[in-house]
Amino acid sequence: MNRKQTTGVAIVGCGTVGGATATMLTRDAELVSQRCGTRIELRYIVDEDFTRAEELGMDASLFREDLDKVLGDDSVQIVAELVGGTTVAKTIIEKALAAGKHVVTANKALLAHHGAELWALARSNNVCIAFEGSCTGGVPIIGALCGGLLGNRIDAIFGIVNGTCNYILTEMTTRGQSYEEALGRAQGDGLAEADPTLDVAGVDSAHKIAILAALAFGRRIDFEAIPVSGIDSLDTMDIRFGQELGYVVKLLAIAQRQSDGLSLRVRPAFISKEHPLAWVSGPFNAVSVYGHATGHTMYYGRGAGGFPTASAVVADIAAIALGTAQRYSALLGIWPDQAPEANQLAIEAVRGRYYLRVMADDRPGVLASIAEILAEYNISICSVLQHESSHANAGVPVIITTYEATEGDVLAALRKIDAMDVIKSKTTCIGIVDEHEERL
Amino acid sequence: MNRKQTTGVAIVGCGTVGGATATMLTRDAELVSQRCGTRIELRYIVDEDFTRAEELGMDASLFREDLDKVLGDDSVQIVAELVGGTTVAKTIIEKALAAGKHVVTANKALLAHHGAELWALARSNNVCIAFEGSCTGGVPIIGALCGGLLGNRIDAIFGIVNGTCNYILTEMTTRGQSYEEALGRAQGDGLAEADPTLDVAGVDSAHKIAILAALAFGRRIDFEAIPVSGIDSLDTMDIRFGQELGYVVKLLAIAQRQSDGLSLRVRPAFISKEHPLAWVSGPFNAVSVYGHATGHTMYYGRGAGGFPTASAVVADIAAIALGTAQRYSALLGIWPDQAPEANQLAIEAVRGRYYLRVMADDRPGVLASIAEILAEYNISICSVLQHESSHANAGVPVIITTYEATEGDVLAALRKIDAMDVIKSKTTCIGIVDEHEERL
Repeated sequence: MNRKQTTGVAIVGCGTVGGATATMLTRDAELVSQRCGTRIELRYIVDEDFTRAEELGMDASLFREDLDKVLGDDSVQIVAELVGGTTVAKTIIEKALAAGKHVVTANKALLAHHGAELWALARSNNVCIAFEGSCTGGVPIIGALCGGLLGNRIDAIFGIVNGTCNYILTEMTTRGQSYEEALGRAQGDGLAEADPTLDVAGVDSAHKIAILAALAFGRRIDFEAIPVSGIDSLDTMDIRFGQELGYVVKLLAIAQRQSDGLSLRVRPAFISKEHPLAWVSGPFNAVSVYGHATGHTMYYGRGAGGFPTASAVVADIAAIALGTAQRYSALLGIWPDQAPEANQLAIEAVRGRYYLRVMADDRPGVLASIAEILAEYNISICSVLQHESSHANAGVPVIITTYEATEGDVLAALRKIDAMDVIKSKTTCIGIVDEHEERL
Repeated sequence: MNRKQTTGVAIVGCGTVGGATATMLTRDAELVSQRCGTRIELRYIVDEDFTRAEELGMDASLFREDLDKVLGDDSVQIVAELVGGTTVAKTIIEKALAAGKHVVTANKALLAHHGAELWALARSNNVCIAFEGSCTGGVPIIGALCGGLLGNRIDAIFGIVNGTCNYILTEMTTRGQSYEEALGRAQGDGLAEADPTLDVAGVDSAHKIAILAALAFGRRIDFEAIPVSGIDSLDTMDIRFGQELGYVVKLLAIAQRQSDGLSLRVRPAFISKEHPLAWVSGPFNAVSVYGHATGHTMYYGRGAGGFPTASAVVADIAAIALGTAQRYSALLGIWPDQAPEANQLAIEAVRGRYYLRVMADDRPGVLASIAEILAEYNISICSVLQHESSHANAGVPVIITTYEATEGDVLAALRKIDAMDVIKSKTTCIGIVDEHEERL
């Protein structure tokens, strides 16, 4: 497109992100147009309720309730779907693609569940879907994976991709708050929803790692096959013991190449205090990417919120206006509908180190029995920590860290350990993520 | 370019980066071609000495000594200049552009000094220059500034962009080594040149911030007008006092928008232990970017070395093969030859906070006199630190941190303070970089 040309945009959904996008496309129109050498014009705001749009001082002449009419307007080349969710949003995107509009979306849930289908539809209509805003808000991780890291075989991705969880874990770690206290604080600060399930249960993080893994590995990802656990059952006791051992707990979204396949998982994990991800605090996000040529690179910033996400949406709009998004979207291996299926490993096949907290009676021979069961499953003990204890009614916490083992072996050993009558409650098992080796 | 097409590449200069690039374009040819949907083929390695190329097992049929002949080959579309320096490299790039070849370079010195001239030449020949490898090696910061952050008004950039300096400072900070000891260690580890001047004096960092600022602010930068100081005169005493006050010293390359202009500077500076940049240790690089929509984002990784830099060079080659680099290069405001000149502030106009170490006689009234002079220049004292001292022959160190002041006022006050006969040696002055305010 040449500099004189105008690209018309319709925003569908004027909530937090839609409103911020509308603001950037109007208030900052000069800046955006100047930097991308083509005029980008907000033509319509499509919604059912324009309260937010009015509060933002948007011109009422932009407001439309009828999406179909907007899609019939040839002066609109790009539709930004900022409604969210997987029902109405899917219909909006399908209609827009069918009408020959490029689509920009920040909708990770929709892409994680229906990405392949939507991408096929985009291809058949000769348009593209751009989705920088879907992962880690304003941090351009999609651009890095598709652009600057393109020459790398990606070996692993470790992401802190949910700001709500990271905020809660930071509060629990630095203030010793319980999960419930920290969640309440996050809700008070507007960082957690009234129903925080999607965030705290790890599902939102799983959506994002599904998208990042598809791009990084050039494979089709089965979202349903990603094992997910959240932060809602974390005990501050384990956070404290982890600190004693030199670890910080983070909710990590992991995609890791093993010799036998690809391990995708979301879970609270211990990471060394020395690792850059351990420093990421409060609502910030960060993604560590290990490439065979770059080694470790990391991308950090605000993973949510109106303007950070709108920044990504506007960048995508600009990339379509420039014609670069279309070219990236044609990349083989990046668009998962034509990519081979990933060989996603079951959680039992994951190899890693583990932190175990066994709550045992303070009796002779208990540690020996535990060690024996671990040995039976080929699990070597790396360290043991047991403090002197005076009140042992609920059992004494014995902390064991293991050398590398398969999770299947660890889970089997724990079933056997927990069946012992000296064990007072279910053993806590938290994965330890060691610094991924750089293979330069 | 369509998927069947082949893009021919000539590498000029087969040293560390050139060798790694040649390796990626041959050993990893399948990966790269698959991901960018077009076949990228290394056609020639141009050099005077092929020892390194032979060590890497490169096919001798690729070796050429005559650049002009290579430039006359129509099957070569891209020339990767990996010679370095500002003399021969300039001629190579000029010839390549004149011959209608796209150029990929990692040469920050050349771009910082002659970027505008070379970009004009590229434009007049309807080709582009891609330079992701010129700043922070494998960390795709150029792509972030031109792509994902495109919709942002950039307010500030703070970069740790020289791995040698960061390694030395990390050693000085964590092991209490002197500058000379740490430099020796860096040289032993192959992280510093025998003549480390370009690195430790801050010049290399200035090259990089000149390029980043041109992109971020869409302004032509006068490299010669960037005030530069290096790490070679840093005293471990100041590192220790800084730590006591909660700061870490880093060599920062800064580009900051002030109301009256743009401040570019390179210097050792104190930064809060809480700031993500403070965590960047050893040879790693990181760049913090503050955008009006994203707030704080940071990009972290290995800033030098063969494969990390080659990763960026290969990404640029792929971007040209895809046609995306050409589109970015046409962006108004990104290509500084047509951009307005930046209003670069003199160092005296920079506003900031300062750490001062005054070496004074331990006599009554000294602190009062110092405070009086600071007040005379409108400099408010933020904190004072003076330990009990037993051996005061060389003077007692008095540490003063200031509130925000202009550097001109601070320097003028220090001239007056240092002229006092109770002052035993020149006062040390180090800028304090506070967390830049996010304006979301």
